[in-house]
Amino acid sequence: MAKIFVAELIEGEPVTAFFLAKQIQVRPRKRGDPFATLTLADRTGELPAVMWEGAGDATSDLAEGDIVKVQGVLGSYQGTPQFTVGRLRKALPEEVELDDYLPRSEKDPQVLLAELKAVVDSLKEPHLQRLLQGLLADPEILQAWSQAPAAKGIHHAVLGGLLEHTVSVVGLCRLLADYYPAVDRDVLVAAAILHDLGKIRELTWDRVFDYTDAGRLLGHITLGTLLVEARIRAIPEFPEALAQRLLHCIVSHHGELEWGSPKRPKTLEAIVLHYAEDLDGKVNAFVNFVKSSPDPRRPGWTQYNRSLDRYLFFGGREDAVPSGEPPAGSEDAA
Amino acid sequence: MAKIFVAELIEGEPVTAFFLAKQIQVRPRKRGDPFATLTLADRTGELPAVMWEGAGDATSDLAEGDIVKVQGVLGSYQGTPQFTVGRLRKALPEEVELDDYLPRSEKDPQVLLAELKAVVDSLKEPHLQRLLQGLLADPEILQAWSQAPAAKGIHHAVLGGLLEHTVSVVGLCRLLADYYPAVDRDVLVAAAILHDLGKIRELTWDRVFDYTDAGRLLGHITLGTLLVEARIRAIPEFPEALAQRLLHCIVSHHGELEWGSPKRPKTLEAIVLHYAEDLDGKVNAFVNFVKSSPDPRRPGWTQYNRSLDRYLFFGGREDAVPSGEPPAGSEDAA
Amino acid sequence: MAKIFVAELIEGEPVTAFFLAKQIQVRPRKRGDPFATLTLADRTGELPAVMWEGAGDATSDLAEGDIVKVQGVLGSYQGTPQFTVGRLRKALPEEVELDDYLPRSEKDPQVLLAELKAVVDSLKEPHLQRLLQGLLADPEILQAWSQAPAAKGIHHAVLGGLLEHTVSVVGLCRLLADYYPAVDRDVLVAAAILHDLGKIRELTWDRVFDYTDAGRLLGHITLGTLLVEARIRAIPEFPEALAQRLLHCIVSHHGELEWGSPKRPKTLEAIVLHYAEDLDGKVNAFVNFVKSSPDPRRPGWTQYNRSLDRYLFFGGREDAVPSGEPPAGSEDAA
Amino acid sequence: MAKIFVAELIEGEPVTAFFLAKQIQVRPRKRGDPFATLTLADRTGELPAVMWEGAGDATSDLAEGDIVKVQGVLGSYQGTPQFTVGRLRKALPEEVELDDYLPRSEKDPQVLLAELKAVVDSLKEPHLQRLLQGLLADPEILQAWSQAPAAKGIHHAVLGGLLEHTVSVVGLCRLLADYYPAVDRDVLVAAAILHDLGKIRELTWDRVFDYTDAGRLLGHITLGTLLVEARIRAIPEFPEALAQRLLHCIVSHHGELEWGSPKRPKTLEAIVLHYAEDLDGKVNAFVNFVKSSPDPRRPGWTQYNRSLDRYLFFGGREDAVPSGEPPAGSEDAA
Amino acid sequence: MAKIFVAELIEGEPVTAFFLAKQIQVRPRKRGDPFATLTLADRTGELPAVMWEGAGDATSDLAEGDIVKVQGVLGSYQGTPQFTVGRLRKALPEEVELDDYLPRSEKDPQVLLAELKAVVDSLKEPHLQRLLQGLLADPEILQAWSQAPAAKGIHHAVLGGLLEHTVSVVGLCRLLADYYPAVDRDVLVAAAILHDLGKIRELTWDRVFDYTDAGRLLGHITLGTLLVEARIRAIPEFPEALAQRLLHCIVSHHGELEWGSPKRPKTLEAIVLHYAEDLDGKVNAFVNFVKSSPDPRRPGWTQYNRSLDRYLFFGGREDAVPSGEPPAGSEDAA
Amino acid sequence: MAKIFVAELIEGEPVTAFFLAKQIQVRPRKRGDPFATLTLADRTGELPAVMWEGAGDATSDLAEGDIVKVQGVLGSYQGTPQFTVGRLRKALPEEVELDDYLPRSEKDPQVLLAELKAVVDSLKEPHLQRLLQGLLADPEILQAWSQAPAAKGIHHAVLGGLLEHTVSVVGLCRLLADYYPAVDRDVLVAAAILHDLGKIRELTWDRVFDYTDAGRLLGHITLGTLLVEARIRAIPEFPEALAQRLLHCIVSHHGELEWGSPKRPKTLEAIVLHYAEDLDGKVNAFVNFVKSSPDPRRPGWTQYNRSLDRYLFFGGREDAVPSGEPPAGSEDAA
Repeated sequence: MAKIFVAELIEGEPVTAFFLAKQIQVRPRKRGDPFATLTLADRTGELPAVMWEGAGDATSDLAEGDIVKVQGVLGSYQGTPQFTVGRLRKALPEEVELDDYLPRSEKDPQVLLAELKAVVDSLKEPHLQRLLQGLLADPEILQAWSQAPAAKGIHHAVLGGLLEHTVSVVGLCRLLADYYPAVDRDVLVAAAILHDLGKIRELTWDRVFDYTDAGRLLGHITLGTLLVEARIRAIPEFPEALAQRLLHCIVSHHGELEWGSPKRPKTLEAIVLHYAEDLDGKVNAFVNFVKSSPDPRRPGWTQYNRSLDRYLFFGGREDAVPSGEPPAGSEDAA
Repeated sequence: MAKIFVAELIEGEPVTAFFLAKQIQVRPRKRGDPFATLTLADRTGELPAVMWEGAGDATSDLAEGDIVKVQGVLGSYQGTPQFTVGRLRKALPEEVELDDYLPRSEKDPQVLLAELKAVVDSLKEPHLQRLLQGLLADPEILQAWSQAPAAKGIHHAVLGGLLEHTVSVVGLCRLLADYYPAVDRDVLVAAAILHDLGKIRELTWDRVFDYTDAGRLLGHITLGTLLVEARIRAIPEFPEALAQRLLHCIVSHHGELEWGSPKRPKTLEAIVLHYAEDLDGKVNAFVNFVKSSPDPRRPGWTQYNRSLDRYLFFGGREDAVPSGEPPAGSEDAA
Repeated sequence: MAKIFVAELIEGEPVTAFFLAKQIQVRPRKRGDPFATLTLADRTGELPAVMWEGAGDATSDLAEGDIVKVQGVLGSYQGTPQFTVGRLRKALPEEVELDDYLPRSEKDPQVLLAELKAVVDSLKEPHLQRLLQGLLADPEILQAWSQAPAAKGIHHAVLGGLLEHTVSVVGLCRLLADYYPAVDRDVLVAAAILHDLGKIRELTWDRVFDYTDAGRLLGHITLGTLLVEARIRAIPEFPEALAQRLLHCIVSHHGELEWGSPKRPKTLEAIVLHYAEDLDGKVNAFVNFVKSSPDPRRPGWTQYNRSLDRYLFFGGREDAVPSGEPPAGSEDAA
Repeated sequence: MAKIFVAELIEGEPVTAFFLAKQIQVRPRKRGDPFATLTLADRTGELPAVMWEGAGDATSDLAEGDIVKVQGVLGSYQGTPQFTVGRLRKALPEEVELDDYLPRSEKDPQVLLAELKAVVDSLKEPHLQRLLQGLLADPEILQAWSQAPAAKGIHHAVLGGLLEHTVSVVGLCRLLADYYPAVDRDVLVAAAILHDLGKIRELTWDRVFDYTDAGRLLGHITLGTLLVEARIRAIPEFPEALAQRLLHCIVSHHGELEWGSPKRPKTLEAIVLHYAEDLDGKVNAFVNFVKSSPDPRRPGWTQYNRSLDRYLFFGGREDAVPSGEPPAGSEDAA
Repeated sequence: MAKIFVAELIEGEPVTAFFLAKQIQVRPRKRGDPFATLTLADRTGELPAVMWEGAGDATSDLAEGDIVKVQGVLGSYQGTPQFTVGRLRKALPEEVELDDYLPRSEKDPQVLLAELKAVVDSLKEPHLQRLLQGLLADPEILQAWSQAPAAKGIHHAVLGGLLEHTVSVVGLCRLLADYYPAVDRDVLVAAAILHDLGKIRELTWDRVFDYTDAGRLLGHITLGTLLVEARIRAIPEFPEALAQRLLHCIVSHHGELEWGSPKRPKTLEAIVLHYAEDLDGKVNAFVNFVKSSPDPRRPGWTQYNRSLDRYLFFGGREDAVPSGEPPAGSEDAA
Repeated sequence: MAKIFVAELIEGEPVTAFFLAKQIQVRPRKRGDPFATLTLADRTGELPAVMWEGAGDATSDLAEGDIVKVQGVLGSYQGTPQFTVGRLRKALPEEVELDDYLPRSEKDPQVLLAELKAVVDSLKEPHLQRLLQGLLADPEILQAWSQAPAAKGIHHAVLGGLLEHTVSVVGLCRLLADYYPAVDRDVLVAAAILHDLGKIRELTWDRVFDYTDAGRLLGHITLGTLLVEARIRAIPEFPEALAQRLLHCIVSHHGELEWGSPKRPKTLEAIVLHYAEDLDGKVNAFVNFVKSSPDPRRPGWTQYNRSLDRYLFFGGREDAVPSGEPPAGSEDAA
């Protein structure tokens, strides 16, 4: 049965389909069974849903994050769509193609990996090049790198997110190496490629995004350092000082001890990498939050952004919307 | 009399010359007059000096920062040069050309101003362009901008330093506006040009670099905001929202309240400006500190850097010295 | 139709009346329409309300903060009054007198403005006096000053709150200028009058209390500095040093960088103003919180106060209630 | 032999006199004995001194803070007075009247104590009155209170400083109790009188100002609480709640845990006391620092103030000097 | 009527019983009365409950923490037990034995007190011994000590908790005194016994665990210091220095000002006591949290621990469960 | 020539000997050569020295930390010994036995290593035992471990200090594992042995104690993790979870991010290790500081301790000196 996606549902038309069940709440009623409210999701979006009958039994073996098979119909409630569930059961493993459910970066990982390979081919320092070519030729690493998210959070995490973030930081670092000639370009670029590689061992992405035990106990900075150092040791005559400068960039890229780096940046490349990574993350967070969370009652402003602890302003522009968005609705933002 | 510069003094050859007297210390002896140790400086460098006879009278009306006329001879002491002063008096105003004494940026301010003008001419938003063209056509502003240092500190401050810093941040912001299409290029570039303009009213540079009263009481963020806002008010139909977005960038460019910004960045341009300014300052501080303060006993490392609270590492490179330096001495840094 | 106020409603008697609709929540039921719970408010108080039928349609175009026309009756629920709404629609602009809905300071703004004028007339420094007389003669300023709240928060904000706070701080500063003869009385008093004036441009109070865009982007310290400085520039021969000392008080009145002042107080008047404003705010917050939020289960204590992060104690007194309250109920507080 | 004071010494006239020896440094010379530099002080001021011959032996049994008998003559060195010591020995106890050496508040302690007594007599709450009258009738307490400094620091500490500070805070609290009628006047005034009483057990002032062992181990907040609580226990039927409210003011008067109060202020009186004490201290520190430490090179500004971590500005005034100072020299401060 | 405990209820069997009513919420329904949800508790556990009819009247005079008499029956809801209440009223004082309702330490207070007495008897310093023997012979102290909880929090607080915590810290301090011979054993042990004694005056435990007024206003550190100091004063010739060293340990045992100690530890005994108390608290918190709050979806991990601000890991062990637990269920934790 | 030690010098008796030259300062004189002051040291102590003639030439090729051959004689100056140097030259490598110059722990490293081996032999978990036995059988590790200091600081660092600290923490952890049965003894003991092992790669101790480049760039936590993880990988079937728990203890042993741990402790063993290491360090710092830095003017108190930011108190005891010290001088400390 072809997967029917959230974005394809038609109001009033009964369907049988598979979704990821996020947030399940069962609530009491005085008479009869409890009812349930759920969020149904797949990679195209998510939808509030309600199940009025049989919800107690149907949900008793469910955990949040399970894929479920539902029968029901899309209606609307208070002007927003709501799915009413008639029947529901846990999906069988063979019914599920995980890629249908987890959000995925819009960028093609093969294209991104090809970009990285081209960057690596352009390096002049032979040991760094050999190290990176080795990683990019390792099927296990490639597989993880093209799948891993960049973070656990439901909202900011997508399959392929780590690779997308990495390529964006690498691009910025190449610009900065051009702008500041004192920078050792090859070390900065290599460090940009490797700085978050430990996340492939810090996170899992097979059902929902979460931390591994090693991720919680050691963290991606230490896991990445262990991974890269072992690779370096396997390359004959890798210069000791070069290894230390590269590992230092990984170790210090959070910039301050209280942000999880056991050492603060002490080389020019480590300083530049820290700023590049931080800025790139902030720009992407801004652009995504403006898209996902404008304040409907206040043109030009977003809702409150918890991680930045402030409201963000995107209004007062002639174009009125961040680039890439259709200009419709720009009247509101004046 | 042609100025004789510190860098031109020849050991053993008596001279009469003018220098800026930085750091004057008069010390007791049991018999006879006290003696004095001084630092003599001009824009080419500085030199320890000692005055054995008549130092009490000669220095009684001197303040640090005064220009003095000295008779004496360059000797050496413990392997480093030392100037022995025979006679010394305060210079007369007509004997002094201030530019000879204060360090000056290596960049030509006229070239930098021309760069800024070209950038302004390329802007598309007409009000911002008019605002900036007005400033760049104002002789008083131009005069101050081509002279002002970027900071008070003896070490990091040079005549023309503000302009040099501004042009560097503007260049970086233009790159970032290209890299991140969601950024409003004209607002970011205009804000980069104006962000530290208040420093022309925060600092003095006529004798030594220091703060004005207004600088200490109000600070360059408020002074710059007052200056720019008054100019905006004088431009007919300058859009209110555009004015707020521009002033917001100035107000928030230190990034956090505890660093002196009364508001934190809330627009994409303000966020990018803050990172660009911070990164540019850090890179320049790194490069200058590596030049000025390598640790003579520890190849590849600098002395302790107070403002960053760490030692910096520039070693372990094949080229061994930050770009722009002659490779001599690179053996030490291996 | 004369406004019927919340405080005048009689249990069991059907009415048609206008209220401000704060907090609107629409909730699902299995069968039939959703129902709505609301808070109805005007300047005399507020009241929980419920609408069982037709709530979906009636509330679909409502935003929190709208004035609504309702038909219904006051009942009681669990021992507290509850209003049951039969019909509800948005009020027309011509049906609404805003002053009826927003809470207002108990003090008469005309009396407070007269107090300020008397204080200004008593100043001896002619430029400060002229500056302040100019502001107090400007109808737009007067209008805003007599209306503006002192803060956005629903609980602590009232129409006229800014003026009430200002007059209270001015009174305290006059006492302190008497007690500490080293204080420059005229500068302190003028600064006390002006310190929060920027709030008339930081806040809106036409429907609910909120921040303006300029308020969020620049803040009342910068907005007030811009406003006052422009006025100073318009007064011939206003002494530069006097202007700086006055503006410094405005700029530094939050006391510390992390509380939003870009400079910390450096003059005696700025130090005293900061303490006076802070103390006056704390005393008023204490007195109001004791009135509004005593802990019903714990005599002498308030509920938890979020902004002070503690419980407050007003018990253990013979009079047992803060002054101004009737002594009734004092048994509880023993 | 009548004490000859520092302020009475005449240049060129040999004297034999007693001084407190602060800061003694003995320095080597190649040949002959070492020489010594000292600071000689008494309650009228202090003076740099030097001893060229016999300094080694003469100072071998001296500790800083000792009173010494010296023979010598006042000269001048580099434009500032310097005392040259010919002979020097430790003074005998019977030769010394301690009051001659330690600085003392300009206020007469008997007058201040009389003020406190009048305030206590005006209280209406009988238990508080009895507590305070008891303290003011206790010779040991009175003796300590009229002598104790308010702090250890050489610069801000004077004999009688605790009493002077106390009376100043009491006066301010009485004003504040008038201004804020919700305040319980008697509790606030009593707490103001007692808040720093623990300092009579925290500090010593018999030779130099220093901490007692109990002062370092327990601190004046705990010592004062112990002292006052023991007195309260001795008064029959002292109301428990009143005792707690009073002790709470003492315990919390530093305002925040990190400033040494184990509880933060939770009553209106404790809040007001904290602000009053803090403001009074800041105003006095400002006025004293302006007197003692103007920046000779920068009119209107003080030198850097370590405890406030800033420069202070007293210029830009028509009167140009803090009240109480003669107007001479006001030209500098313009 | 014998108390029927939560742990003894049998599903489907109607009972009449007494419970402590924690968390009472009354909720509206469109028609008919509101219904109520409650948590019923006694020392054996707690249980969610619901009352559908007559809940409005029945709960109108109830406060959380009251003991109630209920008629009803245990059912199950969504797989977890739920008690349905038919009738409910407040219990009469004579119907209640408080010990049945509040949780109690599993350790017998008489055994713990005997342990303390043995420790005291082993001390060699006679004054400390006399002080402690006096306390352990005081019936009022003994009564409070064997009942007081160690904290207010519902979860971590049990009757007898203070004594249990004290004995555990004393045991650890005895080990540490053996390990570090520089420690003054008697002072450390005495301080360990007394460090939290002030909690018997800071907390109440007669109905629910809460703070006394004195507890909120003065805190257990100050209350304990007052209590112990008064006892010391009553012992003739108690050495002053010994008293100060002992009181210093009490005053400083929180380690830092911001954790509520007005002085930081300055003696070896105070340093060791602070670590011992902190470590003992952390170990017990860890062990208890692992028992009470394992994450059901993640073997080896607990749920999020708020006070430590992290997840805790107890997995990856062969025995898989903290010592003392039966090994059943260890399969999950692999 | 047998080494003559600092502690063996006899006043007035000319010697030729070798010392480590710490702190060399050359100072000007008006006529003739400069003179030099030095600190001469070896493992038995240190001594101030002065060189009056020929100091300029003799010291021109010296760096602090060099071993020098001197001719001279011990005199005394101001009551303290001073060595007068007549001739001085840098020692030849073949003249120097490094062990004579660097301070060394009083404990015999072979005894300490034997203790560790016994502890390892007692472990029950076979993989941990194998890991540790491997390390203790590796000559390179053993060599480093018996030499490495625990810190760079001249005062707290001694050859063998790392091993002494390790054994002390291991002993304490064994006690704590006995006291808290929930602790996994083998993991805690193994982690205690390994927690600071990275210091053998972070520090150098061949001339003076200093950081290696890797030490500054990566730090001992990361270096230790790399070292131990590589060893674990070489042991077949080392359980993954066990490896993570052990490495987690190393990674988190500083306790907080801002103290340099990239993860905070999440297992019981990691929590206990952190406290044990911290407490053991504090106790040793206290005992050493009391020995090295008593305040000569204030019995019972030390001088100001920078790292703890306080004065320490060891007085008020009957024995008056920390255990192990002779009781002489105890009168002062009463």
